[in-house]
Amino acid sequence: MTIRVGILGYGNLGRGVECALQQNPDMELAAVFTRRDPESVKILTEGVKVYRIDEAESMGDQIDVMILCGGSATDLPVQTPKYAEMFNVVDSFDTHAKIPEHFADVDAAAKKGGHVALISAGWDPGMFSLNRLYAECVLPEGKNYTFWGKGVSQGHSDAIRRVAGVKDARQYTIPVDAALEAVRSGSNPELTTRQKHTRECFVVAEEGADLARIENEIKTMPNYFDEYDTTVHFITEEELMRDHAGIPHGGFVIRSGKTGWNRENSHVIEYSLKLDSNPEFTSSILVAYARAVVRMAKEGQTGCKTVFDVAPAYLSSKSGEELRKEML
Amino acid sequence: MTIRVGILGYGNLGRGVECALQQNPDMELAAVFTRRDPESVKILTEGVKVYRIDEAESMGDQIDVMILCGGSATDLPVQTPKYAEMFNVVDSFDTHAKIPEHFADVDAAAKKGGHVALISAGWDPGMFSLNRLYAECVLPEGKNYTFWGKGVSQGHSDAIRRVAGVKDARQYTIPVDAALEAVRSGSNPELTTRQKHTRECFVVAEEGADLARIENEIKTMPNYFDEYDTTVHFITEEELMRDHAGIPHGGFVIRSGKTGWNRENSHVIEYSLKLDSNPEFTSSILVAYARAVVRMAKEGQTGCKTVFDVAPAYLSSKSGEELRKEML
Repeated sequence: MTIRVGILGYGNLGRGVECALQQNPDMELAAVFTRRDPESVKILTEGVKVYRIDEAESMGDQIDVMILCGGSATDLPVQTPKYAEMFNVVDSFDTHAKIPEHFADVDAAAKKGGHVALISAGWDPGMFSLNRLYAECVLPEGKNYTFWGKGVSQGHSDAIRRVAGVKDARQYTIPVDAALEAVRSGSNPELTTRQKHTRECFVVAEEGADLARIENEIKTMPNYFDEYDTTVHFITEEELMRDHAGIPHGGFVIRSGKTGWNRENSHVIEYSLKLDSNPEFTSSILVAYARAVVRMAKEGQTGCKTVFDVAPAYLSSKSGEELRKEML
Repeated sequence: MTIRVGILGYGNLGRGVECALQQNPDMELAAVFTRRDPESVKILTEGVKVYRIDEAESMGDQIDVMILCGGSATDLPVQTPKYAEMFNVVDSFDTHAKIPEHFADVDAAAKKGGHVALISAGWDPGMFSLNRLYAECVLPEGKNYTFWGKGVSQGHSDAIRRVAGVKDARQYTIPVDAALEAVRSGSNPELTTRQKHTRECFVVAEEGADLARIENEIKTMPNYFDEYDTTVHFITEEELMRDHAGIPHGGFVIRSGKTGWNRENSHVIEYSLKLDSNPEFTSSILVAYARAVVRMAKEGQTGCKTVFDVAPAYLSSKSGEELRKEML
């Protein structure tokens, strides 16, 4: 039986899910739900209908799992509990500090509706979290380090755009090579925010704007830039379009730790990602976890789950026998 | 309740398990079982007794999980089914081709005894297998690459020792940098055995031995060396002891794959290990999975499992709340 997937919210992430479903023959796109006028939303998959979001409520029998593709700031805190009552759901909620609260809300709703809800799938939280956990369990005495980039930070790009005189901007977060090397050496260094990452900004200014003031306002912006070494490049709109249209990202999770009766042996575990498209990679993870959610629901499980609660075999369309033979 | 762990077989791996238990305060070493004369086996932990292996059978109520530290060639195919009938067990069975057969034997025994048995824990099979699986599920259209080293291969070192005129030897498996770089570029290269790894041998010859013959016999040895570029260094016994006493290892699992409606975006996922002590790192993994096995058994599960069947949260002594707050 093909798994019937709904997409709720059709932005970069929703479109990424649509693409990923093409690569998973045991799953199919059943419907897309949008807050916009459905007539105005053109999707890529032929023969699949776009619905108004409020039509979802009556379609519980047509969707095995709903992938919620809204934002973490305002959409998901409302949508995930709401739809977890009606469907099995997966989201990519990524406000780390608010995960416990989100989990509690979603858990209550999913249990009430008898569904499985998986929150915070993606790469961080998600794949990076898994690697932090596995590494800590294997090397209990050690230290985890997470580095992000090189990649586009949407939040920081938006912050620059709010500076007076800025027309458009793109911000890259870049891990500092010397910090990475220090961590890989196994020396367990203490690293400040400034030592771990730099920030590089490409800014299109409005004509006649005071570039020195813009640069200063960016570099001293609290929370976003003041704790970092920041570089600002002023470029033309054409250059921005030509050289900075992609949404690449990536990063590193590294743990170094000791073993041995006298802690005489060092070990370094490193996981890294180099991604051409941040949203498409995140979407691909959402789709793999959507498969797992449907299986867990079929077994009679209910409630909220995270990547920590999912046995890896549930992510694969292959049988246990195939996995043991081919991948173990 | 502290988890009471038995160690069956006290070589490098068993000693590694003993060390790892010191780093996991929710677990304790309950007993060591050996085929040798127990009087002759000195262990590191004070106050813990060494037993003859046949005494294990009557100690089912004193051991929550038995970690089997024998070898894959002849010990584990017999021991794991045998002890899975009496205990929850974990082993590091690493003969990839024989895993399906071993799984079937152990599964039948564990179900008969009402226990959980986890086989093939370690780093390959084990952590590397997990990374191959996660990466394939997230990027279904792509290719997995596994590289081993730089590290000591016990099997290849033994093979050299069997050459006439060789007193002792140490063999290092080394991944080829150019191959690693080609894989990281996302170009999905086809790589031959020779292109992926080289082999470096440090050999202590007997006095008066024909070094040219030894070198030639090593380099042309079928299965072990003939398909590789092999370097042979003759050194003294003192140099071997001084420079090659450790058992380091490591390696890389890399997957590159495409996403997007027209597969226009590339992604690279890389996992790597750099280990000072291969047996101690493997032992640390066995201990984490021993914790998981006890939990799964408490839930009423039975039968044979692999790392693919274990939800990551089971490996940690932390609660779900703690994990979500600290690690997600």
